Amino acid sequence: MKKKENMENASKLKIIPLGGLEQIGMNITAFEYEDSIIVVDCGLAFPADDMLGIDLVIPDITYLKDNFDKVKGFMITHGHEDHIGALPYVLKELNIPIYATRLTMGIIENKLKEHDLVKGTKRKVVKFGQSINLGDFRIEFIKTNHSIVDAAALAIYSPAGCVVHTGDFKVDYTPVFGDAIDLQRFAEIGKKGVLALMCDSTNAERPGFTASERTVGKTFDTLFEDHKNDRIFVATFASNVDRVQQIINTAYKFGRKVVVEGRSMVNIIETAQNLGCISIPENTLIEIDKLKNYPDEQQVIITTGSQGESMAALSRMASNMHRKITIGPGDTVIFSSSPIPGNEKAVTRVINELLRKGADVVFQDTHVSGHACQEEIKLIYSLVKPKYSIPVHGEYKHLKAQAKIAQSLGIDKDNIFILSSGDVLEMDAQEAKVTGKVQVGGILVDGLGVGDVGNVVLRDRQHLAEDGILIVVMSLDKYTGQLAAGPDIVSRGFVYVRESDELMEEAREVVDSAVNALINRGISDWGKLKSTTKESLSDFVWKKTKRRPMILPIIMEV
Amino acid sequence: MKKKENMENASKLKIIPLGGLEQIGMNITAFEYEDSIIVVDCGLAFPADDMLGIDLVIPDITYLKDNFDKVKGFMITHGHEDHIGALPYVLKELNIPIYATRLTMGIIENKLKEHDLVKGTKRKVVKFGQSINLGDFRIEFIKTNHSIVDAAALAIYSPAGCVVHTGDFKVDYTPVFGDAIDLQRFAEIGKKGVLALMCDSTNAERPGFTASERTVGKTFDTLFEDHKNDRIFVATFASNVDRVQQIINTAYKFGRKVVVEGRSMVNIIETAQNLGCISIPENTLIEIDKLKNYPDEQQVIITTGSQGESMAALSRMASNMHRKITIGPGDTVIFSSSPIPGNEKAVTRVINELLRKGADVVFQDTHVSGHACQEEIKLIYSLVKPKYSIPVHGEYKHLKAQAKIAQSLGIDKDNIFILSSGDVLEMDAQEAKVTGKVQVGGILVDGLGVGDVGNVVLRDRQHLAEDGILIVVMSLDKYTGQLAAGPDIVSRGFVYVRESDELMEEAREVVDSAVNALINRGISDWGKLKSTTKESLSDFVWKKTKRRPMILPIIMEV
Repeated sequence: MKKKENMENASKLKIIPLGGLEQIGMNITAFEYEDSIIVVDCGLAFPADDMLGIDLVIPDITYLKDNFDKVKGFMITHGHEDHIGALPYVLKELNIPIYATRLTMGIIENKLKEHDLVKGTKRKVVKFGQSINLGDFRIEFIKTNHSIVDAAALAIYSPAGCVVHTGDFKVDYTPVFGDAIDLQRFAEIGKKGVLALMCDSTNAERPGFTASERTVGKTFDTLFEDHKNDRIFVATFASNVDRVQQIINTAYKFGRKVVVEGRSMVNIIETAQNLGCISIPENTLIEIDKLKNYPDEQQVIITTGSQGESMAALSRMASNMHRKITIGPGDTVIFSSSPIPGNEKAVTRVINELLRKGADVVFQDTHVSGHACQEEIKLIYSLVKPKYSIPVHGEYKHLKAQAKIAQSLGIDKDNIFILSSGDVLEMDAQEAKVTGKVQVGGILVDGLGVGDVGNVVLRDRQHLAEDGILIVVMSLDKYTGQLAAGPDIVSRGFVYVRESDELMEEAREVVDSAVNALINRGISDWGKLKSTTKESLSDFVWKKTKRRPMILPIIMEV
Repeated sequence: MKKKENMENASKLKIIPLGGLEQIGMNITAFEYEDSIIVVDCGLAFPADDMLGIDLVIPDITYLKDNFDKVKGFMITHGHEDHIGALPYVLKELNIPIYATRLTMGIIENKLKEHDLVKGTKRKVVKFGQSINLGDFRIEFIKTNHSIVDAAALAIYSPAGCVVHTGDFKVDYTPVFGDAIDLQRFAEIGKKGVLALMCDSTNAERPGFTASERTVGKTFDTLFEDHKNDRIFVATFASNVDRVQQIINTAYKFGRKVVVEGRSMVNIIETAQNLGCISIPENTLIEIDKLKNYPDEQQVIITTGSQGESMAALSRMASNMHRKITIGPGDTVIFSSSPIPGNEKAVTRVINELLRKGADVVFQDTHVSGHACQEEIKLIYSLVKPKYSIPVHGEYKHLKAQAKIAQSLGIDKDNIFILSSGDVLEMDAQEAKVTGKVQVGGILVDGLGVGDVGNVVLRDRQHLAEDGILIVVMSLDKYTGQLAAGPDIVSRGFVYVRESDELMEEAREVVDSAVNALINRGISDWGKLKSTTKESLSDFVWKKTKRRPMILPIIMEV
């Protein structure tokens, strides 16, 4: 690492978020100093409501591809989809090494396996406290707490100064697994001088502290006591290993056997077990097929689907679509989760379904957030004492809320930067400012297609979804220019045709006479025929139904 | 009203909910005694997420049409869409009189005007305490409180006994307009003996009491004081006249002029003003065009759009799409509302937009619910002391929560009925049970079409939305059975064709060779050609993209 702090023409550090600042999801940030770039996280976003048919969204990494020679590696803070989910897609275009802590790497490797990328990808497991030297950068991994084990903050040292990136974090003084967040190290680094703090904003609107994960364990004990005679289901996030650990602990106390159900959860728990991040008493975890050997009151089923996902195990069990387990009277279902914004209705749907089946549903006190609330954010600021504040991980309102906190702690308003993805923030000890903009955006993934669905296709899907389609086909005789067949109208998603044959026949007549009027005047230009078809049909349909289906004229020449 | 209570073969009262028990919305319940039917409410539901392109949902009233001669009238409890919204549609098929209190009728009349139904519809405004005699029924309107003025509970007297229906209610001892709920009358009726209580379940999961609407007024005073120099916007529900009253009161105190913006709110406030349900100090309400004559700190804009509705005034002002008002720095926007489940993301979108524009956003303490919490529900049960409990107005989990409350108050489990729409609950003083089922359901309204979009069309829309459509057209020579033109493929909502021409050309070749293989074997049966087209193309596309677009083969004969 070059020492340039004292040079007159020392370069500046560039921080370039390539995603993650317009929504929660798709976290990826480039740090650039002269010829070195390192990238923090590489997450996906789940599609917005209007991205019909899209499976997931990954960041546009044009800037990294354009600077491929500089890019030294991905530093991954933890194993959640919004921080690792785009890796398999990005690695196919940009094969650079990955650095992450143990469980994070384990989860990444599961992903790479699915995409057959394990062999081709350089990976290095990093320990907390360890530093990685990459070009002009040194990156130190610092222990934090989060709703997944092995989460890390990063201290990113460059010749222009040090930036602390918290990753997703909370302060848990009594974590279930491993150590509490390394507050001393934050303080030590802060004492030496920190240029900028990039801090998790998710809960920046919430006052107070986030409770310890351990508090949930006590609630499980009480609930298991209250529902002693029931079969117990607990739905939670697949990746929350500590939560699963606590459910297993309580199950063991009460002499119950545990089944883990839902592919994503099974995978992560397996990985966590292999890495020693979860400890399961012998003979506690059993195969789903063995459940029948135990009475209800000796069973616990830990399952995915706490967000109401229709294809997850819980939904399938609630709606009798699961092959092995059905939920009914005598069952208690505990939601150890809270709905992610946007999922409220889906969660309620599952709860109603479960209640209707006769199950008891518990929806309280068995979840704590994985993100820092206001007092924790203040604590980190007070330990790190950065010159510049760059709120990250949140929607605009969250970033804004953190900016207010930073200001309340005495950070100058002009030193707080609410960035947009693509902004190039250049900084050194003297000043920081946004000096440019790089290409960013969301690339839509639909099935195997990456980027082949764009705005035009989405607009078409929205149009089709709203009012369906009317297809008008006709054949023209290429010699005479006369109609050889049609026009015929076929519709999908418009009206129930069998009960609307009158309307459809009228529509056909409208098009027929409009088209024939043209042809009889000797006009057989396809453009003209198509536009006439569209206009006449669209007017007719709007008048009759006040709807605007897509109208697609197709002409064949015979 | 016949007196049959003491007769050996007295008939039973039938209660038949025709909607409203599977979701919040579409409230409509028939009460039948021998040759008399009265109907309580006639609401609409907003479409579920999977009802693509649907504007609203109205109840199937086949049962009422089949018993037209018996139906005496609609009793409307209050003027919210989920209680009155289906009236214009239903009245077209079933012209029967409407009974409602003053403001409720005013709002209904606005609706009827839009549908040109005022003249043809018999309407009677009912006062609180007044009773209506219809066939074997007597119906008494009882004063309650709710988030709209003039809400009523109903005591429905029949020879088989009395049923109390609360409508939507809360207990507000200090309402903004008019009297508090008539608890004495509930008690008096209860004392005489009530067969069944049908009680609002919306907040049955919430402990405690709902706060008085008046508490919100005090918060407005504080907020206006805190934002003395800003222009103030307040977004709230269009129909909450009391809320608007309180905003106007505060505005007047602070010497501000008020503009009401958003068509639905303007209509309701106008109606409320005409009926004396709101009192506006002179020179306080001004036209939007006059705003420019006043400095920012003398303006208040009360607006619709508190649910993040993209076409409502607030969203349009936030995104610079409003013709007269733009929101920016120096503006404070108060959300006097809480998001209805399912609207959370839309509301957040607007908040982010407003913050990004530089406005200050206040989202707290300026809303109270219009529905009774657990202690209020207990109060009503304790005054009415019904034999049977029929929780209404809620999703299953809400109904279930009320059932638990009823049971905790000593009502026998077997006397609590969580009904489904269509259930026929027969009752008298001796017993109550579900004895049958009538046809019910949601009729989808899309533009002018009522019921012409059903499951087939919705499934098509979902399919189109997910992966788009591939249309394969070909012309067959009717004499030779040979291809005269095509097959050609046209797609919409599938891939961006300009960048996928290779894929599309390959797809065409796949279909071409499959179809030609058939034709060369002398097969020109359309069914066979179509199924071969579908299969070959579907296989190819799945293999290449893992998507399943709709495939629509169209054959023309020339």
